[in-house]
Amino acid sequence: MTTRKLHLNAFLMGVGHHEAAWRHPRTEPARLTDVRHYQQLARIAERGRLDSVFLADGLALHGDVRHNALGGLEPLTLLSALAAVTDHVGLIATASTTYGVPFHLARAFASLDHISGGRAGWNIVTSAGEAEARNFGIERPAHADRYARADEFLEVVTKLWDSWEDDAVVGDRQAGLYADSRKIHPVRHAGRYFRVNGPLNTSRTPQGRPLLVQAGSSEDGKEFAARHAEAVFTAQQTLAEGQEFYADLKGRLVHYGRQPGELLILPGLSPIIGSTEREALLLEKELEDLIIPEYGLAQLSTMVGIDLTTDDLDRPLPDVPVETEGAQSRRKLVVDLARRDDLTVRQLLVRLAGGRGHRVVAGTPEQIADEIQEWFENGAADGFNIMPPVLPGGLEDFVDHVVPELQVRGLFRTEYEGRTLRENYGLARPASRYALSRRLEVVGS
Amino acid sequence: MTTRKLHLNAFLMGVGHHEAAWRHPRTEPARLTDVRHYQQLARIAERGRLDSVFLADGLALHGDVRHNALGGLEPLTLLSALAAVTDHVGLIATASTTYGVPFHLARAFASLDHISGGRAGWNIVTSAGEAEARNFGIERPAHADRYARADEFLEVVTKLWDSWEDDAVVGDRQAGLYADSRKIHPVRHAGRYFRVNGPLNTSRTPQGRPLLVQAGSSEDGKEFAARHAEAVFTAQQTLAEGQEFYADLKGRLVHYGRQPGELLILPGLSPIIGSTEREALLLEKELEDLIIPEYGLAQLSTMVGIDLTTDDLDRPLPDVPVETEGAQSRRKLVVDLARRDDLTVRQLLVRLAGGRGHRVVAGTPEQIADEIQEWFENGAADGFNIMPPVLPGGLEDFVDHVVPELQVRGLFRTEYEGRTLRENYGLARPASRYALSRRLEVVGS
Repeated sequence: MTTRKLHLNAFLMGVGHHEAAWRHPRTEPARLTDVRHYQQLARIAERGRLDSVFLADGLALHGDVRHNALGGLEPLTLLSALAAVTDHVGLIATASTTYGVPFHLARAFASLDHISGGRAGWNIVTSAGEAEARNFGIERPAHADRYARADEFLEVVTKLWDSWEDDAVVGDRQAGLYADSRKIHPVRHAGRYFRVNGPLNTSRTPQGRPLLVQAGSSEDGKEFAARHAEAVFTAQQTLAEGQEFYADLKGRLVHYGRQPGELLILPGLSPIIGSTEREALLLEKELEDLIIPEYGLAQLSTMVGIDLTTDDLDRPLPDVPVETEGAQSRRKLVVDLARRDDLTVRQLLVRLAGGRGHRVVAGTPEQIADEIQEWFENGAADGFNIMPPVLPGGLEDFVDHVVPELQVRGLFRTEYEGRTLRENYGLARPASRYALSRRLEVVGS
Repeated sequence: MTTRKLHLNAFLMGVGHHEAAWRHPRTEPARLTDVRHYQQLARIAERGRLDSVFLADGLALHGDVRHNALGGLEPLTLLSALAAVTDHVGLIATASTTYGVPFHLARAFASLDHISGGRAGWNIVTSAGEAEARNFGIERPAHADRYARADEFLEVVTKLWDSWEDDAVVGDRQAGLYADSRKIHPVRHAGRYFRVNGPLNTSRTPQGRPLLVQAGSSEDGKEFAARHAEAVFTAQQTLAEGQEFYADLKGRLVHYGRQPGELLILPGLSPIIGSTEREALLLEKELEDLIIPEYGLAQLSTMVGIDLTTDDLDRPLPDVPVETEGAQSRRKLVVDLARRDDLTVRQLLVRLAGGRGHRVVAGTPEQIADEIQEWFENGAADGFNIMPPVLPGGLEDFVDHVVPELQVRGLFRTEYEGRTLRENYGLARPASRYALSRRLEVVGS
């Protein structure tokens, strides 16, 4: 029996990950902008001892709002309100390096890390969409440019987080010394994309640096993850694909002087749970019956880059152009899925409706736990990004029935080990680069 | 007796507004980054039925961190965590139009408005400092440029807030209609500073638009306030100055087709409260004795634009250059104060230490209430921006002793009238400009 433990993240998405979730009797679409809905979800995740909750994000209204519950809340403000009602669960927000500003972003995440007592994480995205570019008055940057900017963005932000050493604040009221200014450093960054003087005007945070998470799986995306990420969310459809991705990404770490354990890989999994397999399949069918094909077809057309809205849905997916500038890895995944299982467009729509390309498994808690265990013990995952089809019900099902099964099997914690997100994930707290260089100077002198 | 009611805002500032607050036994400087401190303050304000709490902000580490408690939290994330533990008190965050991005800012405030059930306000600043410019890789823009950009920024942000009409979300599960896309509008803004397509990807908020607050008192600042602001925070030292500012600003509204009641003016007031006048003066003296002159002198040098750190402190303030690009109104206020009361530099430092140019009044609760009443009833204020010298104690003193006195005099509410910040301030909920124009089209056809 292994002593290695699974890591589980609850991917929170409105009233559920299934695109028809908002039409299902188990959800209330009006909760999309109700903070109490998300507070309930975070509490459920914490009750299940999950490592973290996570919010995806985009910077434009994506998809047809006639047919899906869109227009929700901004992740950082929302997670701060979740921090206020939880104690242990990590809080991971998506934010973009292409349309973000390093000083603002460094500060907001530092603030969330203080507010949550060390539970902040940043899911770094480079924003592939054209609609997003139009909200910021620029042409969509090329794929390689986005990643070059992201690299420098990371450099600036981590410098700012490091700019106050851990022991900079002294707080000596008698002597009138609040902080040791020698331990607060201007960062004096001047690069291709950014010039930032610093220091940050928020002190060093409980985690030192919020956890760095990434999800792009293109070649550029994987190299970026290998350099910077401490956790990776990924969409993998089969065990073989999961194993290949896992080995590939872990193998890249050595080039950057990193150990395999310094980056955790969490494939997405949408569990459709029933007390019997029949009940699970019934729920899946109910959701399928609520799909509005027009909605999924528009989404799919955007993903593959050709207009399918006037096609015959009962033919195979036509040839699609190779993506070079947008969301490369997502397009490849969708095409691979259609070809591998020889799907018609209509069948593909059903497959994508559950998890937008992430793996969907319908079954009993034991069957879901079997799948998780198989991937975890066979080199495909360090844990999972759980994407309940309906919320809050689907997360409750997972926490109340799958988590106990994983605990009985010795695969998952029964109590939190520590207080910070880094402690949940078993990752080290980074030292400030400025403290390190000062120490080296002292040693060298 | 008047039926007009005062409006009171609690200006939250670390462990107190006095620059030596962190050294006083009534504070704990370690609370600077502790969210529970601010949650306690927000609850105290709500217990006192105050209209709102407010967080100032800058985008650089201003002042000498050796001698003051600096490096606190970012306002929007912090207010979201305060929303989670309060029900009525308004939540006003400072954010910059010079270094902010309209889409991000519109979205974060919209999100805070949803999260708080309609209690969000934005204190609009144009960021006068040079250190701030260096954190964003640009030269500090000229004063007039900052205000021109601010005007266009406001136009974009209010368009984005209006982009979803109030009744855009339908939520008809049977019909599969989530929203009426005819009521969600691209904003298609293309101006001198910004190109933003929209719509916002967060739905219309409880207040329609978060409350717009402003604090600059230069000529440009006052015109900006007259065009856009619904509440103004201002530093006024004497009743006569307060009356002049009040009449001046209210008088400008008519040029923009606005009524005097559509903009509330709240001068700053730092109340040093004792159960006797002697006790209040003792507290004031205790704080004065903790001042570190080196700190205030560096601050003053920046404010007036000349290096005073090597001067004889017991001489009058020397002639200072006229400010044209930075914080004009603050420099004028400081110089006026020194000249009017014929202060030495040392005396000026003491006056500024309490409220950075805002009015400081030491006395009993009755004496503080007298001052408030005098300004309120004599055309100098619609309410006050309360700046307690020490926190939380100074806010507790105000809420427990001054507020009841104001309530007995019929000047202040005893229960909240509504749930939103606009309802607290007695201000109307704005209609979406897009809904209005659509209605006019229908009428015209």
